[in-house]
Amino acid sequence: MSEPLYQRILEGDVRAAGRLMRQVDDQIPGARQQLEALFEHTGNAYIIGFTGNPGSGKSTLVNAFIRECRERGLSVGVVAVDPTSPFSGGAILGDRIRMQEHALDEGVFIRSVATRGNLGGVSRSTPALVQILDAMGFDLIIIETVGVGQDEVDIARIADTNIVVTVPGLGDDIQATKAGILEIADVFVINKSDHPGSDRLRRELKAMLSLAVDRSDEDWTPPIVHTVATDAEGLTKLFEKIEAHRDWLEGAGADDSRGARDRRRIEHLIRLIVSGELDARLDAAMAAPTWQRHLEGLVARRESPYEAAEELIAAIARKD
Amino acid sequence: MSEPLYQRILEGDVRAAGRLMRQVDDQIPGARQQLEALFEHTGNAYIIGFTGNPGSGKSTLVNAFIRECRERGLSVGVVAVDPTSPFSGGAILGDRIRMQEHALDEGVFIRSVATRGNLGGVSRSTPALVQILDAMGFDLIIIETVGVGQDEVDIARIADTNIVVTVPGLGDDIQATKAGILEIADVFVINKSDHPGSDRLRRELKAMLSLAVDRSDEDWTPPIVHTVATDAEGLTKLFEKIEAHRDWLEGAGADDSRGARDRRRIEHLIRLIVSGELDARLDAAMAAPTWQRHLEGLVARRESPYEAAEELIAAIARKD
Repeated sequence: MSEPLYQRILEGDVRAAGRLMRQVDDQIPGARQQLEALFEHTGNAYIIGFTGNPGSGKSTLVNAFIRECRERGLSVGVVAVDPTSPFSGGAILGDRIRMQEHALDEGVFIRSVATRGNLGGVSRSTPALVQILDAMGFDLIIIETVGVGQDEVDIARIADTNIVVTVPGLGDDIQATKAGILEIADVFVINKSDHPGSDRLRRELKAMLSLAVDRSDEDWTPPIVHTVATDAEGLTKLFEKIEAHRDWLEGAGADDSRGARDRRRIEHLIRLIVSGELDARLDAAMAAPTWQRHLEGLVARRESPYEAAEELIAAIARKD
Repeated sequence: MSEPLYQRILEGDVRAAGRLMRQVDDQIPGARQQLEALFEHTGNAYIIGFTGNPGSGKSTLVNAFIRECRERGLSVGVVAVDPTSPFSGGAILGDRIRMQEHALDEGVFIRSVATRGNLGGVSRSTPALVQILDAMGFDLIIIETVGVGQDEVDIARIADTNIVVTVPGLGDDIQATKAGILEIADVFVINKSDHPGSDRLRRELKAMLSLAVDRSDEDWTPPIVHTVATDAEGLTKLFEKIEAHRDWLEGAGADDSRGARDRRRIEHLIRLIVSGELDARLDAAMAAPTWQRHLEGLVARRESPYEAAEELIAAIARKD
C-alpha cells in the first residue's frame, strides 16, 4: 500500500476515495496534497444540482434519476448535503436509505455530508468531494441539498445545470421563499405532479419567470418538467431537458457558457480554501489570552469593536 | 445639522437612525465611526429572536407580540430579515405590511433587511442594526428571520432568548429539518394551535427534547407555548415564558448567563467585521490582473488551486 491515495483513486479504488473524503471531512492536513494531485484530472464530469424544499420528494427523484442515467450507461457520483442533527451529530439517514438500491452498483457512488452548524450553507467540503468524484471519472455528479436559502446560491456556483424541485400545494408563503431559487434554476421540476394544484403551480412558475425582464432572446429559458418520482414518471423528459441545457451551455458565444461555469467553480473552490485558512487563523487569534483581555474591555464597553477587529486583522496578517 | 448622526440617534431621532441604517446596508465607510460612537451606549436592550418555517404565521405572531409589549409599556425595535427577491432586488413586502398597525407608534421601530444572496444567512448588517436600536434605548429588540438553516444558528449568537415558531401539520420532512433549531430554542411556540395536529406536535417536540441527554437539572428546559396569533391568543403566556427565561439567564451561576450571551454577541459582531474586511480584500485581490492570469492557468489545469490560494492569502496579508 505504498501507492499514494490519489493514485489509487485515479485507478477507481472506491475505498481509497471514501478514505480521502473522510480526511476532507475531518480537515486532515494531508488531504490537501492528495486533492492537489487530483486537480489536473478534474473538469470532465457534468455537474447537476438538485435543490428544493423539504417534502418535495427530492431524494426519491434523485434516486429515479440515477436509474435513468444508469440505463443510459452513465456513471453517477452523488454528494448529498444534509442538515446536521444536533442530537445524533450526523446526517439524517432517512433519505439516504432510499438510495440503497444503488449500493451494489459500481457505477454509482453516494456520499452524505453533514452541514455542521457553523460552516453555513453547503458544507465547505462539498467542492473537494466533487473534485474527487470528478477525478474518479464519473460522467455525472449530482449535488443534492435539503432546505432553502444560501445553500442554493452556493450550489449554483458549483453546478453546470441546476434543477429546482417544486411540489404542488405547499402554500403561498413557501412559494415566496422560492423567489431566491428562481434566479439559479436552469430546469424546474414539479414533482408529485399527480397531486392537486400542479397546473396552478406551473402557471405561477411561468408568471414568475415572465417577470424576469432582463432576459434576452439568447438567454436560456428554464423549462418546467412534470414528474411523479415514485412512479419514475417524467424522468426521460427531465434527462432530455438537462441535455438541452448542456448543449446550450456548450454552444458558442453563450455568456453563461460551460467554461464560464468551470471558472466560477474554481473561483468558488479557491474562495473556500482561502476563507477556511483565514477563519482558522481568526479562531487562533481569538483563542489567545490577549484577545480574552480585549473581550473584557468590550463587554464593559470600554473598548470599541472596530479597533479590536483591526488588531485581529493585523494578527492574522502577521501569521503569514 | 452639524450635530453628528450618532448624537441625534442617542437623542431618539428616528430619521437619523433610519439614515445610519441605510448607510450600514450600503456599506458606506463613514457608518463605522457612527457605530463606534454608539457602541458604549449598547448592552441594555433585551434581544429576542423569532425563527421558524415559512408558513408558520411568524410575522402575525411578532405583530401580536409587539402589541402585548406595548400594553406593558415596553418599547420595541424589530429587525426583520427577509430573503431577497432576485427580481425586485428588495425584501418581500407581504409580511411587512401586516406590521403597519404599529407604523405611527413611536415606541415601535421596524426595519427590514434583505439577505442579499452572497452574504449568507442573517445579513451581515443585522448586528449593526441591533446595535443602533440598542443605543436608541428600545427595551426589547426582536430579530425575525424567514427560513430554516444557518440563519437560526447566527441569530442564536445574537439573541438573549430564542423563540422557535412551529405549526401543526407540516409533515415529517419539515419536522426533520427542525432538528437544527431544537438546539437553539429557548421557548417553543406552537402557533395556529387551533389547527389539527397541535397536540401531536407538542408530543413530538417533548420527545425530541427528552433526547437531549446532556441537559443537567440546572439547565433551562424550553417550555412549549400554544398560540393563535390571528386571535392574539397565548401572547401573555409567551411574554411570561420569555420573562422566566430572562430571569433564569440573569440568575447567578448560569453557565449560559446573559453576560455570556452578551460576550458571544460581541465576538460574533467582531467576527463579522473582520470577515467583512478580509472578504473585501479577497475581492480586490481576485479582481487584479495577476489573479486573472492565474485563473487561466487553473482552468487549463496547469496550476493548483492550493498554491493559488496561498498567493491570495499572502496578497491579503500584505494589504495590511
